[in-house]
Amino acid sequence: MPHANRISRIRSKLAGLELEALLFFDMRNIRYLVGFSGSDGALLVGENGVILMVDGRYVTQAKGEARGAEIFEYSDKIDGIARVVTDAGLRSVGFESVAINFDHYLNLKGKLDGLVLKPISEEINSIRAVKDQDEIELIKKAVEISSRALASTLELVRPGIRERDVALELEYRMKGKGAEKVSFETIVASGKNAALPHATPGSRRIEDGDFVVIDYGAVYGGYSSDETCTFAVGSVTDRQKEIYGIVKDAHDRALDSVKAGVACREVDRVARNHIESAGLGEYFSHGTGHGVGLDVHEAPRLSARSEDYLAAGMVITIEPGIYIPDLWGVRIEDMILVEEDGCEVLTRMPKDLRIL
Amino acid sequence: MPHANRISRIRSKLAGLELEALLFFDMRNIRYLVGFSGSDGALLVGENGVILMVDGRYVTQAKGEARGAEIFEYSDKIDGIARVVTDAGLRSVGFESVAINFDHYLNLKGKLDGLVLKPISEEINSIRAVKDQDEIELIKKAVEISSRALASTLELVRPGIRERDVALELEYRMKGKGAEKVSFETIVASGKNAALPHATPGSRRIEDGDFVVIDYGAVYGGYSSDETCTFAVGSVTDRQKEIYGIVKDAHDRALDSVKAGVACREVDRVARNHIESAGLGEYFSHGTGHGVGLDVHEAPRLSARSEDYLAAGMVITIEPGIYIPDLWGVRIEDMILVEEDGCEVLTRMPKDLRIL
Repeated sequence: MPHANRISRIRSKLAGLELEALLFFDMRNIRYLVGFSGSDGALLVGENGVILMVDGRYVTQAKGEARGAEIFEYSDKIDGIARVVTDAGLRSVGFESVAINFDHYLNLKGKLDGLVLKPISEEINSIRAVKDQDEIELIKKAVEISSRALASTLELVRPGIRERDVALELEYRMKGKGAEKVSFETIVASGKNAALPHATPGSRRIEDGDFVVIDYGAVYGGYSSDETCTFAVGSVTDRQKEIYGIVKDAHDRALDSVKAGVACREVDRVARNHIESAGLGEYFSHGTGHGVGLDVHEAPRLSARSEDYLAAGMVITIEPGIYIPDLWGVRIEDMILVEEDGCEVLTRMPKDLRIL
Repeated sequence: MPHANRISRIRSKLAGLELEALLFFDMRNIRYLVGFSGSDGALLVGENGVILMVDGRYVTQAKGEARGAEIFEYSDKIDGIARVVTDAGLRSVGFESVAINFDHYLNLKGKLDGLVLKPISEEINSIRAVKDQDEIELIKKAVEISSRALASTLELVRPGIRERDVALELEYRMKGKGAEKVSFETIVASGKNAALPHATPGSRRIEDGDFVVIDYGAVYGGYSSDETCTFAVGSVTDRQKEIYGIVKDAHDRALDSVKAGVACREVDRVARNHIESAGLGEYFSHGTGHGVGLDVHEAPRLSARSEDYLAAGMVITIEPGIYIPDLWGVRIEDMILVEEDGCEVLTRMPKDLRIL
């Protein structure tokens, strides 16, 4: 009964927060707590009841999917939430303040005059961070699908093919192998496009001597995989080998630093120190990793400013990179399961430099 | 110079709002105003300057894409915005209140003590609603790509094929014909799944006698197409023909009611009245349509509560439906360009009942 356990964990927070109920707006959290996979709605978790609020489009789906929740149908979302909260006779309700826009907040606040409406973010930000066994199995399946799809797509990564065609084939094969969807828009960035950490695959044709960065993932049972491989095509210069090696070492050192109890900023520090010591710190322009689950980016965050700590059961990425503007870039990303004394690497593609 | 004109339109609103500048957070509006197509950032439009704020991942892309804007790089988004606003010496700034979450608002407000920070939503909600000629051409191209892809996929829609395989082939063909991505996750809903307006394509195999609802769209140059076709497979009962005919008539009547100056709720009323007069009003559980452009759902909104009015140049959908739980459903959706005296239908698939 994972959903019942998850609801219990939320309820156990209520007293400490001096609240009678919590309002959820993030659809990933709602899926996590009651199993409803629609794309709009709200969830009220009180001491005694759980109410899932959806509009007419989702009533049938909600009745079929939701576990342990009463279904309430609204036509206007904010009106509906206000009605449910009012009818429940609640006086103090926390709400997911990162998942409601300011306009909706003002509207809701106006309809709940006299009620204590308390923004809650950090207290629930990490409710999904530690995965249970069912979740880890789904993540492993997502990894299996995506890895097999990439392996079968690599034969196409040759001089002359357009980035977008590689991305298209990879996504098609992930879905053909059972992915519900892709975790995010696949990145296939070649040549100087590889210097853009979030490049969109375009019409550029891959050339001999390119680095090709492929950042991709599949969703299975709602759970994402996330992996980045950087390949060399045709030939590779000593400078390319050197930069790849620096990123790989940063990745390996960060990975070695992972175990339960370690500060996330410390893992980031390990990767960043290595790249900085090579004089390339300015070219590593993003954090070292993030949690992955129902969302491809979720708690914890592995960055210089993170205040998160690793715990056994977290699934995170380790993904340092070096991006030299107008030249090329390298990113190496694995997804790992944090354990008491280390970690298990979940992604499957080898990360030594491979020349296609 | 569409971007310069669009910035001018925003500036012309400042005086009436008694503001010195406006802060944008919606990435579609930011793309519309300055051409930057990244997925995170913020934009400040003042009387004299335009500043695009992005993190390190997007600096190179922003410099390449943004028109008429200075680029500011931040490491923490809210800190960066506060810094830019403070350095500009502004005393009154409006912000896009539907596009910032309450948590970020509290954070930003705390850093801008003493400054007037005014929520703005309705005044800018519709800035993209009326399309210019360049935008209409991109939308037509998106429609062309998606229509050709559907036409070539229909041969697969036969008893025995799984919904998800139809969706996969349709998406693959849209991208193969030039779509940058799909407008939204393609819906292929057969049999009783068709009774779910937002069904996710699953493993159900299409059967003789099914209605198959296909709701799909392609993105080209950032602009979406959006169309729904409902096909019968193999055979069709008189009751199916009757229900299809009611939806088709509701669609045609709504379409005939469209011209510049008409209230959007009136168009919804026309479709809804027709379905209600057949005693099926309870099974039409969503609005009649919405604007389409850089976002697949944008202003105006065609629903019973809408306060929007049609104007020449708007691109909207007309999409009534009837969904009979556990039995089947029908939705018919065209995308149209509003004109002074009527409309031009942009989508291309014929909407008479077709038996595959």
